[in-house]
Amino acid sequence: MPVYQFYSPKGLLTESTKTQIAEEVTTMYCNATGALPSWVKVLFQELPEGDCYTGGKPTAQSLILGINRQGRDLESRRATLRQLSQIWTRATGQPEADLWISVTEVDHTNLMDAGLFIPEPGHEHEWFEENRARLAELGIAA
Amino acid sequence: MPVYQFYSPKGLLTESTKTQIAEEVTTMYCNATGALPSWVKVLFQELPEGDCYTGGKPTAQSLILGINRQGRDLESRRATLRQLSQIWTRATGQPEADLWISVTEVDHTNLMDAGLFIPEPGHEHEWFEENRARLAELGIAA
Amino acid sequence: MPVYQFYSPKGLLTESTKTQIAEEVTTMYCNATGALPSWVKVLFQELPEGDCYTGGKPTAQSLILGINRQGRDLESRRATLRQLSQIWTRATGQPEADLWISVTEVDHTNLMDAGLFIPEPGHEHEWFEENRARLAELGIAA
Repeated sequence: MPVYQFYSPKGLLTESTKTQIAEEVTTMYCNATGALPSWVKVLFQELPEGDCYTGGKPTAQSLILGINRQGRDLESRRATLRQLSQIWTRATGQPEADLWISVTEVDHTNLMDAGLFIPEPGHEHEWFEENRARLAELGIAA
Repeated sequence: MPVYQFYSPKGLLTESTKTQIAEEVTTMYCNATGALPSWVKVLFQELPEGDCYTGGKPTAQSLILGINRQGRDLESRRATLRQLSQIWTRATGQPEADLWISVTEVDHTNLMDAGLFIPEPGHEHEWFEENRARLAELGIAA
Repeated sequence: MPVYQFYSPKGLLTESTKTQIAEEVTTMYCNATGALPSWVKVLFQELPEGDCYTGGKPTAQSLILGINRQGRDLESRRATLRQLSQIWTRATGQPEADLWISVTEVDHTNLMDAGLFIPEPGHEHEWFEENRARLAELGIAA
């Protein structure tokens, strides 16, 4: 919450690029929402040559397929898309013309992290208070 | 309907663990919904080291990303999340702190299985009656 | 918009089959919606033996997991599912009994292509006019 899956051409990303992207995406998301850093999941998947097509032709484009909780307002969601694009192009050198982003929204009742149900957007703070003991036990928050 | 994609660290799952998880998830889902077992799709994907991050740091966590029909009530959906978590932790030995689950809901009109449109939740039995001949022809149901 | 991810058994698809599928899916989608070909993304992913289960048993089935904009009418969406099934079975020789399709709908405000926000279904033409200069600059449309 969110999960961001980054699909990119084989060989584009070094280990340090992946770390940079994962760190920046996590900071961006937590600053915007007040979410726990541990909620931000980033997966990288390489696309072997010939396995990605745009407009019916093989391409070396990248895609970010995200999953996020329903309920964030339009301005926050658009700001997130813009920032994802900037983080990606800055870290990889790919032009933004080669990046596709989509974020699928799911109801917060369809999410579970570390055995806990996740609150709806805007109710993070009450939730942290209520789950403080369990989060400490899990080593997720102090 | 559902599709469950299990993402886990490279090497965590043996063939027999995969079979156990797929069997238990299928039984759990069919008992809860009356769905045909053949509707339950389970995919396993390994995450090579360094391709999965939590909170900006490389991690050996696992994720279950599901897709299911819209229209199941809150209690059933929560029970499914709890059971998915239990099946996973019991089969793999990973603590629940290392598991993330999300289920994306799609309208039943956006699903096709074996060339057939799938009914909305709660209308499985009428649907089986109506499609009995075709399902038998396909070898899916007697 | 759309993204179609094709999951199929290792070795089923040749390069020319992939190209054929990507071309036909792109033509089908653009004819139905007036979308730019460059909006149609097709990804292929192989499922190693033992990583895909149906009904709790290992299987050699295929899945098409799509992501599309919310707002297309029922008849268009059903026609798209039928055509995806036909394109796949014709190109691969797999029977339709071995194919599962789902399309997840996302609000158009959750999509970004080439740094641009995508219009809602039915507003493509105004959008092309408004973004003509930028699209030409990006080499996406004349």
